[in-house]
Amino acid sequence: MQERYLFTPGPLSLSSTVRDSMRLDLASRDSAFKQVTQQLRDRLLLVSGGQASHSTVPIQGSGTFAMEAALVTFTGKRDKVLVCINGIYGERIAKILAKSGINFEALRFPATLPIDVATIERMANLDEGFTHICFVHCETTTGIVNPVRSLVETGRRHGLVTIVDAMSSFGGLPIDVEVDGIDVLVSSGNKCIEAPAGVAFALISNRLLVGGVSHASSYCLDILDQWQNFEQYGEWRTTPPTHVVQAFNKALEELLEEGLVSRNRRYCRIRDKILSGMTALGFETVVPQDCQSPICLAFRSAEFVPDKPAFESYYDHLAANDVYIYAKLHDQTGTFRIGCIGQIEDAWIDKLIGVTAEYFDISHSILAA
Amino acid sequence: MQERYLFTPGPLSLSSTVRDSMRLDLASRDSAFKQVTQQLRDRLLLVSGGQASHSTVPIQGSGTFAMEAALVTFTGKRDKVLVCINGIYGERIAKILAKSGINFEALRFPATLPIDVATIERMANLDEGFTHICFVHCETTTGIVNPVRSLVETGRRHGLVTIVDAMSSFGGLPIDVEVDGIDVLVSSGNKCIEAPAGVAFALISNRLLVGGVSHASSYCLDILDQWQNFEQYGEWRTTPPTHVVQAFNKALEELLEEGLVSRNRRYCRIRDKILSGMTALGFETVVPQDCQSPICLAFRSAEFVPDKPAFESYYDHLAANDVYIYAKLHDQTGTFRIGCIGQIEDAWIDKLIGVTAEYFDISHSILAA
Repeated sequence: MQERYLFTPGPLSLSSTVRDSMRLDLASRDSAFKQVTQQLRDRLLLVSGGQASHSTVPIQGSGTFAMEAALVTFTGKRDKVLVCINGIYGERIAKILAKSGINFEALRFPATLPIDVATIERMANLDEGFTHICFVHCETTTGIVNPVRSLVETGRRHGLVTIVDAMSSFGGLPIDVEVDGIDVLVSSGNKCIEAPAGVAFALISNRLLVGGVSHASSYCLDILDQWQNFEQYGEWRTTPPTHVVQAFNKALEELLEEGLVSRNRRYCRIRDKILSGMTALGFETVVPQDCQSPICLAFRSAEFVPDKPAFESYYDHLAANDVYIYAKLHDQTGTFRIGCIGQIEDAWIDKLIGVTAEYFDISHSILAA
Repeated sequence: MQERYLFTPGPLSLSSTVRDSMRLDLASRDSAFKQVTQQLRDRLLLVSGGQASHSTVPIQGSGTFAMEAALVTFTGKRDKVLVCINGIYGERIAKILAKSGINFEALRFPATLPIDVATIERMANLDEGFTHICFVHCETTTGIVNPVRSLVETGRRHGLVTIVDAMSSFGGLPIDVEVDGIDVLVSSGNKCIEAPAGVAFALISNRLLVGGVSHASSYCLDILDQWQNFEQYGEWRTTPPTHVVQAFNKALEELLEEGLVSRNRRYCRIRDKILSGMTALGFETVVPQDCQSPICLAFRSAEFVPDKPAFESYYDHLAANDVYIYAKLHDQTGTFRIGCIGQIEDAWIDKLIGVTAEYFDISHSILAA
């Protein structure tokens, strides 16, 4: 099995020790596995700064499962959600709300700009019916970082429950659920925590949980019911993905060992190296520099305007060299994405840049012929 | 990491090669991973006999996620489900339906007896409002096998859509979705397929899928939408648990190599060896012999009437010797469960029986003292 050099914004390249932790078969109802679950829940609180204020509810499935679970559990038929959108994952929140029959209003911004706080402020002033505000912290569509603190602060000033999709940012960007005043933060193991995909989670303020009433009409996605079960019995209500949970817990141990500041610095360093290499080849990013996350970069170039076939040809050339970037072009911005997270080594970046240079040399010679 | 001898009816002991397949990090949107997904879908059809009649929709999460997905996608507000219950997992179906606001009627039978077809027949004759019938093939509560063919035949004769929970039976007991006429069969990778937990699936008749309308108000649990995505793009709508999917596909390869008949025989042999050992120690099963699955055994004894503390003490003694049975007592029948599936070796069974004998000798001497 040839190792692949993943530059994908999750699932990503795991450490060897995280992968090794999937070699043990634990019994899902045994105390040893309950301890793993509890440790995972505690470590997530530690990473989030929410030890005194929040509780962790792991949810199996992708991050979207946890996002839907949070939305359907904590919003009722009389509520109205203000959804702030500047990319694919913001759109997905609107899609979930529409499908679930939850009342909402979407405010859309260009994918290349951060969500505008002043516009949100005006909207919240105009319409007094809002009960919740929801947005994506780091939009993986372009790698843009939205102003989480100002948005949450605006929401709280208007008495709104704040639900933040921190899928690709949690563990990689500084965030403190208590200090920042976030009611519900949703994320997943397979991004900056560097765990395999399969388990997501919500960090929920105790004030929402204790004495809270669930609005969920889904058994599986009822976060409150699952939280009560964790608190009372330490157990997942239905069969948990034991191996993924073990690896997730191991990945958290490694995140805490590395430290949040160091991990952020490592990602920034990877981003800067990719950025300088790609810029030298004529590629440009599409988001303002001060909103550029160290999670992923979205590139385009004046010369290489990637329509779908052109991008696929470039993608295939990278893949033939064991280098994998995100496989889809974003039509709206004409960009492709390169992830900066996971166990990316310097030599991999050299390879990515080298193979990209090689590809465009080849293409140029074909065009010139 | 000391190996554990799992006698649990899923999650269970995996083969070393299945575990090894989780060592490769694949990009979730890459063609290599799409191929793994397609192979998994095809192999499940092959195992089920549904190549010409059904389609596979994998769903991430536990089996319950797939069961809820099937129920909310294929039953509408005007439908009425006849739920036949003789154990915990039948009750869970009723719980999902109640929570989802789907109209249903539950018919309950003792946990130690199979679902009675004549009663179901009478019920279906009495009430003409039923549109669906739903039951568990092998109730893991006691290891009892319900008469799947007769129940499906009864349902079909009354024009009902048949939804079968074959969670713990699929791959271990003979079942053919086309010949048996099952509309929707739901199961999970972590039982007789011997994959890690985290991915379940539904096998759905093409007549329900093609031109079908989804009733789901959930985005994540909309099976029809996910099916259309698999058919059109070969992709999971949201981030799939790549490592678990890879292992699931490997486990299916190994199931097909071993052969369904051989796997069933292997499980029967394990069951018989456990049964004879436990019987010799004075334990009795609680279900009629002709309904006893090779999936798991539920035991009690006249002498050792396990209340919760007594059972926990026995469980802990087994665990101290690296032997793990299902961790919970079933109060209603006063039984504990021993799984017969997974990579159980003969020496493990000897150890289980030996340690059980040892425990009761110890207990007896304490009682006698």
